[in-house]
Formats: sequence, C-alpha cells, structure tokens
Amino acid sequence: MNTFGHLFRLTDFGESHGPAIGGVIDGMPAGILFDAGLLRNEMVRRRPGGGSVSPRKEEDETEVLSGIYRGFTTGAPIGFIIRNKDARPEDYKDIVSGYRPNHADYTYALKYRRFNDPRGGGRSSARQTACRVVAGAFARMALSKMMPELRIEARLEQSLEKIMEARTAGDSVGGSVSCTITGVQAGIGEPVYGKLHARLAEAMMGINAAHGFEYGDGFALAEARGSEVMDEVSIRKDGKVEISGNHSGGIQGGISNGMPIRFRVAFKPTPTFAKALPAGSRVGRHDPCVAMRAVPVVEAMAAMVILDCLLEDRAYRIQ
Amino acid sequence: MNTFGHLFRLTDFGESHGPAIGGVIDGMPAGILFDAGLLRNEMVRRRPGGGSVSPRKEEDETEVLSGIYRGFTTGAPIGFIIRNKDARPEDYKDIVSGYRPNHADYTYALKYRRFNDPRGGGRSSARQTACRVVAGAFARMALSKMMPELRIEARLEQSLEKIMEARTAGDSVGGSVSCTITGVQAGIGEPVYGKLHARLAEAMMGINAAHGFEYGDGFALAEARGSEVMDEVSIRKDGKVEISGNHSGGIQGGISNGMPIRFRVAFKPTPTFAKALPAGSRVGRHDPCVAMRAVPVVEAMAAMVILDCLLEDRAYRIQ
Amino acid sequence: MNTFGHLFRLTDFGESHGPAIGGVIDGMPAGILFDAGLLRNEMVRRRPGGGSVSPRKEEDETEVLSGIYRGFTTGAPIGFIIRNKDARPEDYKDIVSGYRPNHADYTYALKYRRFNDPRGGGRSSARQTACRVVAGAFARMALSKMMPELRIEARLEQSLEKIMEARTAGDSVGGSVSCTITGVQAGIGEPVYGKLHARLAEAMMGINAAHGFEYGDGFALAEARGSEVMDEVSIRKDGKVEISGNHSGGIQGGISNGMPIRFRVAFKPTPTFAKALPAGSRVGRHDPCVAMRAVPVVEAMAAMVILDCLLEDRAYRIQ
Amino acid sequence: MNTFGHLFRLTDFGESHGPAIGGVIDGMPAGILFDAGLLRNEMVRRRPGGGSVSPRKEEDETEVLSGIYRGFTTGAPIGFIIRNKDARPEDYKDIVSGYRPNHADYTYALKYRRFNDPRGGGRSSARQTACRVVAGAFARMALSKMMPELRIEARLEQSLEKIMEARTAGDSVGGSVSCTITGVQAGIGEPVYGKLHARLAEAMMGINAAHGFEYGDGFALAEARGSEVMDEVSIRKDGKVEISGNHSGGIQGGISNGMPIRFRVAFKPTPTFAKALPAGSRVGRHDPCVAMRAVPVVEAMAAMVILDCLLEDRAYRIQ
Repeated sequence: MNTFGHLFRLTDFGESHGPAIGGVIDGMPAGILFDAGLLRNEMVRRRPGGGSVSPRKEEDETEVLSGIYRGFTTGAPIGFIIRNKDARPEDYKDIVSGYRPNHADYTYALKYRRFNDPRGGGRSSARQTACRVVAGAFARMALSKMMPELRIEARLEQSLEKIMEARTAGDSVGGSVSCTITGVQAGIGEPVYGKLHARLAEAMMGINAAHGFEYGDGFALAEARGSEVMDEVSIRKDGKVEISGNHSGGIQGGISNGMPIRFRVAFKPTPTFAKALPAGSRVGRHDPCVAMRAVPVVEAMAAMVILDCLLEDRAYRIQ
Repeated sequence: MNTFGHLFRLTDFGESHGPAIGGVIDGMPAGILFDAGLLRNEMVRRRPGGGSVSPRKEEDETEVLSGIYRGFTTGAPIGFIIRNKDARPEDYKDIVSGYRPNHADYTYALKYRRFNDPRGGGRSSARQTACRVVAGAFARMALSKMMPELRIEARLEQSLEKIMEARTAGDSVGGSVSCTITGVQAGIGEPVYGKLHARLAEAMMGINAAHGFEYGDGFALAEARGSEVMDEVSIRKDGKVEISGNHSGGIQGGISNGMPIRFRVAFKPTPTFAKALPAGSRVGRHDPCVAMRAVPVVEAMAAMVILDCLLEDRAYRIQ
Repeated sequence: MNTFGHLFRLTDFGESHGPAIGGVIDGMPAGILFDAGLLRNEMVRRRPGGGSVSPRKEEDETEVLSGIYRGFTTGAPIGFIIRNKDARPEDYKDIVSGYRPNHADYTYALKYRRFNDPRGGGRSSARQTACRVVAGAFARMALSKMMPELRIEARLEQSLEKIMEARTAGDSVGGSVSCTITGVQAGIGEPVYGKLHARLAEAMMGINAAHGFEYGDGFALAEARGSEVMDEVSIRKDGKVEISGNHSGGIQGGISNGMPIRFRVAFKPTPTFAKALPAGSRVGRHDPCVAMRAVPVVEAMAAMVILDCLLEDRAYRIQ
Repeated sequence: MNTFGHLFRLTDFGESHGPAIGGVIDGMPAGILFDAGLLRNEMVRRRPGGGSVSPRKEEDETEVLSGIYRGFTTGAPIGFIIRNKDARPEDYKDIVSGYRPNHADYTYALKYRRFNDPRGGGRSSARQTACRVVAGAFARMALSKMMPELRIEARLEQSLEKIMEARTAGDSVGGSVSCTITGVQAGIGEPVYGKLHARLAEAMMGINAAHGFEYGDGFALAEARGSEVMDEVSIRKDGKVEISGNHSGGIQGGISNGMPIRFRVAFKPTPTFAKALPAGSRVGRHDPCVAMRAVPVVEAMAAMVILDCLLEDRAYRIQ
C-alpha cells in the first residue's frame, strides 16, 4: 500500500509522466508554524544537481492545498501536489521496450499483469521521493516545536572522485549514506515489533536502490567480542545517568537511550548508465551515483519515523 | 504495539517470569493441514542447545487453544500459550539492580516510568522469540499448500571455533545469519512502502540483538560499479524470461522476480557474559553467541513476511 | 484519521474554503476500465440541486492525477483533486462568530485548540462528501467487473411535501435514506469485529448529520418475537440453498448470505436554516433536508465497503 | 480480522467448544492499578443469569498471564485465557445438522468452505463476548485514572414481563439496550472517518444479534424540524460554555462536547428457542432475550472506544 507511518502518515500517489504527483499528510498536530522556507529548501536539496546549483523557482513547486490556516497547521490533513513539467501525453522514447536490467520493469509487469504505466518507470521513478521530502519537511516543522534539540544530518559516503571516474567511464557507482540524529528524547520506540531501529530500517530500505541498513556498529558487531562493545549505563552521584559508549547507536531494546542515533544505508549503483544502454540513448538525466540524491530523502524518512514514535509515546504517557 | 503483519498477523504477549507467554495468529486461511510435527520441530530448533540435544518433550510445549478442527485450520484465529516453567513469584536474584550494559533495562525504565517487569529482562527476554517461531510454523503450513516449491533456509555465519574461544574466555561474540528463500512466486511485494525487502528488514531488525540487514550483494553494492552488477532480464525464444545474475537478491523494485531471495542479518554479541558480571553471578544459561539461536527465528519471520505478501497479492489479482 | 477502508482505501483532505479538496484511492486493482461517465454522473447526483438540474460542466470537476493509463487502472494509487471555485483568501462573512447550534464549531475549537480553519465549517463542510463519491465511483468500476450482478440503490425516505413545508417555514427537516444492495456474493464480511453490517454502520454513521443505522428489520426486531422473524435456510433437492425470509437483511453472523442487503440511515435536520440565523444572513445555499444530498453518498460508502470485503475475501480464498 | 481498536486494542480467539477462549489487550498504559474485583464483577454481570445469581467463583475465571507486575500494569500486552468448562472432544449433540434459521451456520460454511468448527456455533458463540468484557474492564481501569468522572451505564429496554411471556410461550423476544456516558472530556473523537459515534456504532453493531444503533434523538431526528432540536452553545459571562439541550447526544461533528453521550442499540430475538427446535432438543441454556446479556457487553465496548479516542487525543495534544 502507499501509506507510510502510523500516527504521522504519508499517503502518496503519482507517476513521473502523469499530470502530477502528490499526497496527503495525516496526523500533523494543530498549531505548528508552517515554515515555507524549510519546505522549499529541502525540495531544492533533493533535486538533480541539488544544493550546488541555484534554485530554479519554477521546478518542483509544491502546492499545499489544505491543512494550513493563517500560517499554522490546523490539525486537518495536508494535501499537496507537485505538477510534472515533463508530462507528455505519450512519448515513444519513454516507452521501454524489453525489460531493463536492475529495474522494476519486469516485476511490475508481473504484478500488475502489464497494466502498469511503463513511462519513465512509472511508480518506481525516483520522482516519488519528492513526496517523502515534503512529508519529512512537515515532520521537521512539528519536531522543531516538540523536540527542539533534534538534529538530523545525513551525508554521502562515496568520494566525488570515484563518482566522477564512473561518469567518465560511462558507468555508475554505488554509495552509502550515513545519518546521525542527536537530541532525541530517551524512551521513544517500541520494545518488540515497532523497535525504533526496525522502523528506521523499514523506512530506509523503502528508498529506491537501498540494499543495506545497519545502526550503531552494525555489521562490525557480528565480528566483535562482547567485552569490546559494552555501552555501560551508570548513575552518577547527582542522579544523572551516564552512558559510556555508543556501539549500540543510541537505541537499546528498540527504544532510544538519549545518545546519538547513528545508522548507515547502502545504495546500489544507478542501474541506468551510458554503457548499459543501446547506442544513441539519452542518459544525461541520470546521476552516476543514486546515493547522492538519497541524502535528503534519508533525513526526511528519519524525521517521519522520529515524529511517529514521539506521537505514540505521548499517547501512553499518562501522569 | 505487539502485532506483526497485515493480512497474516501475530499478536503476542508475555514475559519470561510470568505464568506464560503466547499469542494470537490471525489471518490463517481455512483448510490448511495442521502439522504438529513441524511446529514441535521448529520449537526444538529454537531452544537453548537447539537441535543438537535430545528434545525434552516437556519444555516449551505449545498449547494450541483454537482455530483447529479435525486436523485442519478453520479460518478462525489461532490462540496459543507456552507455560513458563521457571516462573517464580519473586526471586531476588532475578531482580536487576542498576542497569546492565547493552540491555533494555534503562530504556524500559524510561519508557514505562519504572512500572515495567524487570525480572529476566521482562518483555525483552529472548523467550519472546518462541511466539515468532510458533507463528512462523503456521505460516509454513499455509505456504506448503499455497507455494509448495518454497524453501526457507538460514544458517549461522560465525565459526564454532570462535564461539568456543569466546566462551572459554568468559566472553561472547557476534555473528551473522544468512538466509536463502527459493521457490518464491514472482510478483509479490509492494512497489513503494511495502517493498518485500523493506518488510524483511523490518522483520529481521525486530529480532533481539539484530544490528544490520542487507539483501542481494548488500553493502558490497555501495562500492560496486553499475556495469559489474547487472542482472539482465531477457526473453527467450520460447517466451520464458531468463535473468542472468542475482546481485539484486531476488527482488527488483520491491517485488520478487522469481530468483532466490538472499539476505543477511548481523547480530551483536550477547550482552550478558561472565566477564561482564560481578563475581559469583550465574551465567550458565546465556549463549556466548546470540546469533546461533536466531537461525530458526530468522526463518520464521521470513515465512510470515512471504505469506503476508502472498495473501495481499491474491486480494488484488483479479482475472 | 482521514482514511477509510482496509484493502480498498480512501485518504482525503480539504476544506471548503481552501484551494482544493481531494484524496488518494489506494488498493484499486489493476486492469479495471476507467469509466469517466460513471464518475461524472455520480458527482452530478451529489451536487446541490442534484440530478434534477442540468449538469454544469465546470463545477466539481474531478481531476484524476494518477493511476490510469490508456483507459485502465494500473494498480497504482489514484490521486485526485477538485478545485474549490468559491475559495476566497478571507471573507469576513464566512468567519463564524460564536458557536452555531448543532455544528462542529465548538468541538473543533476544543480539539484543535482554535487552530482549525473556521471558514465554511472547515473540514466539517458537506463538501468533503465529494471525495467519498469519487472513491465510491471507482469502487463501482471495480465491482462492475468483479461482481457484475451488484446493484446498490438508495432512496430518500422523506416526502418532498414536508421538505417544501419546512423550507417555506424557514426551517429544515430530517430524513432517512434506505439502501438495498442486490447481487452480493454470499460469504463476504468478517465474523467478529469486521462484521459486514458493522462496517456499513461505521461507514454510514461517518456521513455528516447521520444519527441512526439499522439493517434488516432493524429497531423493529427489538419488539419482535423470535418466531415472527425467522429466515429459514433449507437445502432443496437440487442441492441449492433457499432462504425463506429476509428479516436479517441479507447478513447472518456478519457475513452476506446472498439475499438483498437492506439498511436505513437516519439524518438530523440541516442545522443551518433561516429561522436559526440572525436577520440578514445568507441561507440560500443550504438545503432544507440534508438527507436529500446524502443519497449518492450512502451508495458510495456502500460500494467501498462491499469492495473492501470482497478483496479481503479473495485474499484468504485458497483452493 | 479479530482485532478491535487502534491505540487500545483487543485481539481475541476461541470457540465455545475448544479448550479455551482468550485474547491480548495491547496499548494498556503503564502504571494503572490492576483492579481484580472490577474484572470479576464485570464477568459475573455478563454470565447467563447475570448479577441476579450468586457468583459461582469457579466459572469463567479469567487467567491473566502477562502485563501486570506488583499490582500495576507494566505497559506490556495483557494476555488472558478463560478455560471452557464444557469443552468436549466431540459431542454429537453439539454438531448441527442442517443450517439453523437466523444463525451464522450457513454463512460460515460458505466463507470457510466448511472447514469452520460447527460445535456450539463456533466463533459466533455468545461466549466470545467474555473477551470483550475482559478488555472493557481493563479499559475502565485506565479510564478511572485518566478520566475519573467517567460513568458508563447501560440498561435493558424490554420489560421483564414480555420476556417471561416469551419464555412461557417457548418463544424469544428482542430488546434494546440504552447507554449513557457522563463525564467524558470534551474534544475527543475524529472529525471525518473516526467520528466518535461512528466508532460506537461499529463497536455496538459488532455485538451478536445487534440490528440497530442510534445516538442522541436518533431515528426521531429523521422526522423532526430543525427548529425543534437545536442544542445552542453559548458563552457565559464567566467564560464558561453552556449547551442548552442534548438532542445530539453529546457529540457534534464526531467529537464529544462534554454533554452526556446517549445511544441505543437494538437486538433481535434470540434465534434459538423451544418452538424453533425439533422436539426433544435442549434449550435450557438459551436466554429468551439476548439483549439482557448484552448490557455489560455494551458498556465494555463503550469503555474501549472512549479510551481509544482519549489515547489518540493525547498523542496530538501538544502544548
């Protein structure tokens, strides 16, 4: 289904070659200041070329259709759309013949008995991530009021040098995105099926091209001795709790412990690249490293997960 | 919350020191042969000591309370309980003083404002995985009828030598579990938020001590060139589809492509081990490598995810 | 939350004085013929004035933004918007001062701590039902393929005479809508919490101004003797099942039995009427009998419920 | 599915002739005093014969298996079972031959392709309501802390005289249960799909034999003039809000307004009664008026709905 989240939810729609993509953000608390600048900024970061180029105002403009009144959220659902500038009634060049390697063409055809929209990859288009970024921006607006110390920062873990080499070779290259979240209130997340890291894993693995997720010391823990990776919890004389290390990545038993949450997501190389295509094909629009563009998407999904967990926590926190 | 799955669902309860653990399996199709031997076998595999010791019949006996009639599932929910043999009204030795490193003691205390049951780790006890194994066994029963070619096989990726070394040193060690699923019908999974691999990731990361998940070539893809990892899809002269490689691990765009599904889960070292404990503490019951016992749990969760996706697929597959 | 349904779901947004209302329809099977005429027709029926006036093409035009390709549904979510022609940046006359009787003004202000959009009633506006009608039209498209014998027909149970009397008196009047569904496959619905009639009740009671729901002989059954209202099920010589009566309204134990499903919904009088308003207020836009306009909405909700139950049924119907 | 509720959830299982019925209550806040007396009392009220007979301690004993520690809820799920004293391996008299009128025999057989457990009606047995009463009792425990003014009181609306007449005639009779909830905090419930009255309707219509639901003036509103049923909201000089009437039954726009919530549920006559059965059948166990036994079940479901709405409200109530 096309809904992400429980108490803070995004339901989205749209293909790259239809009239628009968009969605509904449900569970936004009332009384949150609508920060149009933050939303625009996140959308600029996500664009091909991203923050490094001057923002072209006319592209990817998000039209917010509901849920805001006099500059604040109303508690009603927030509908939004983003028009597709490229939408063409039918452009032969966009119709894929055959099934491209490492794409969803074949599996979509099976699942939807060939009724799927094949233009531009249809629903599998990277364009869908724009909806995630919109919802992530709204989640950040709520969190800036509810958890003001929170910082979510992701960065690419592949060198620009390797990316340029791949591009020059007509090839693509994979990459990782690491993310650190600080200022998270201790005690959020669920102990069994809604573990905070399991929700982050689900969120991140849902981003196009993601192939791996780890938190804390991650896969390195599979080779470690217990004595090497202890995060000791001690109670100081003044009653405050001190945690001595962070091999666990800020989460114990599925619940945040107040230390920085650290995780990493691995992305495969862009499946579309010059060498892979028949001579004469257009490839200019494809990034050689899909992980580059995933950075703001990773942050957006993280913001949505944190807010969702926070709202759940408040529901049960009776005094 | 304590429910896993959408159309095939497990809701479970129980702490290691209460009278029993148990759960409700909902969404089991009617008319499936109840295979008591399969259930017992999976429970034996999961036990401390596992398959290598003679099954002591009296332990971990699963009492099925509903949903079976004359040897077949009825379509009604399946309630089950497993009595805790160790249950003691209150045993001081089980009450943790202070917060153990790398355990959920501290985060539970925060989340539940110290009302949580601290005996034996309460809800974070590894004993909870018994409920997952019960539900996984029922999922396998349904799958053996609905997808008879299916095989789910996990194995530990840590050497017995290293495990024994750790034990001898009064220490513990991490480990990985790799899993291969063959015979999965192509076309199951969802394209955006319910991607098959995202659901596997959520399922696996919810197992105690899991710290990483990858599928296909996983984290290695982050360093690969696109040209090195292409899984080409070609249509043979007889109309059949052939896929040339499996770097993607049997899933494209979140949907199974009929190739073997491969994934790997990293587990941290058992946090409880001799060296970490005050002199004189009992540690006999703790495995030096928690990943060992996770093998049947990984398979159980995989079975539940596959069945869930299969039921969803059938809902929308109109002719 | 703003989502209705389980496997066939509508998530909608929008206030009467914002730029647009709209929603996302998720769970639409692939390969269903998109019937634009049916959609337009249902929207015309719902409008103030309804079927009795000539359709003004420019009003309530539904813009479908995704999920359709070459005239068929693709299986992807269907996004749609309907622009609000009346939208005004801020019109003082639309700002309610004080709390109107029998409106949601006061309860919204409490729930949303006065951050709600008060213009035109905000989210409580009858305009929201347009989204239900859109989703109902799509549900009918799917059902016309999956359950071709199905007929859903609702009608008003209040005399035009009484309605006109009320209008003349500057007053409003309540009304009932009765609905009959024929051609429903026997065996859909759930036995305990998702009973078919409980889902119909939830659906109907969610329509603005609804105050009562009954199915079969309904409230009259509370005064009946058991011997007077028996629907006997007998097996004829040719093996076919025959049911002798329909006091139960086509549902037994929460599951359809193949007989016509009959239910009735009571609506309170329109709370906005001339006598209730200060002198000089505009009331022209308000119908004297809100039940009138509910007729196509009742049908739409019924179609959504039937389709949802049918999809659930298919998920578990293994052979 | 066999789950009721969103943030406070009951998932239950069990047939009348299996070893036990039971369930899992999820979403119980931590730190609530476990009131065993309240639970026992509600279970006694529900029993055949109900409060009028001396409580036989051994019957319907609820075994609570988890989620309580030192007399308080822990925040973990509460598992419980109730053994079936009547359970027999197979008793021919309990196997129904043919399909009984107004029972679920036929529809269950269709839905589950005859794999359902037919003994005692299987899952459709009135015994299932015991699980609802258990969950309702826990909901009341939470509410007694969170909303201490709350009172939920239901009563039968059929005369004992008519019930006795029906019994004497070997017949059964229908009945209504009316319920009044006072002390509900204003502002709970959702504006569109989760309207408080729609959730009450869904909850009540899910009780066996329910055929109608109305709140406030209910079906009478369908015949009323708007001017006759106005509940005026005025702001007094001291700033307090005063509501002049309660035709709306304590809910406006799906949200509680602080006035008493009033609703009524209609039940059909018990379908099993002496005259309807072949000569020599046992009917002693069947009440002539099923509505009688529904009284504590109506209260239990109401308590669950109110708590669920209250938890949702808290999730979004940021300051």
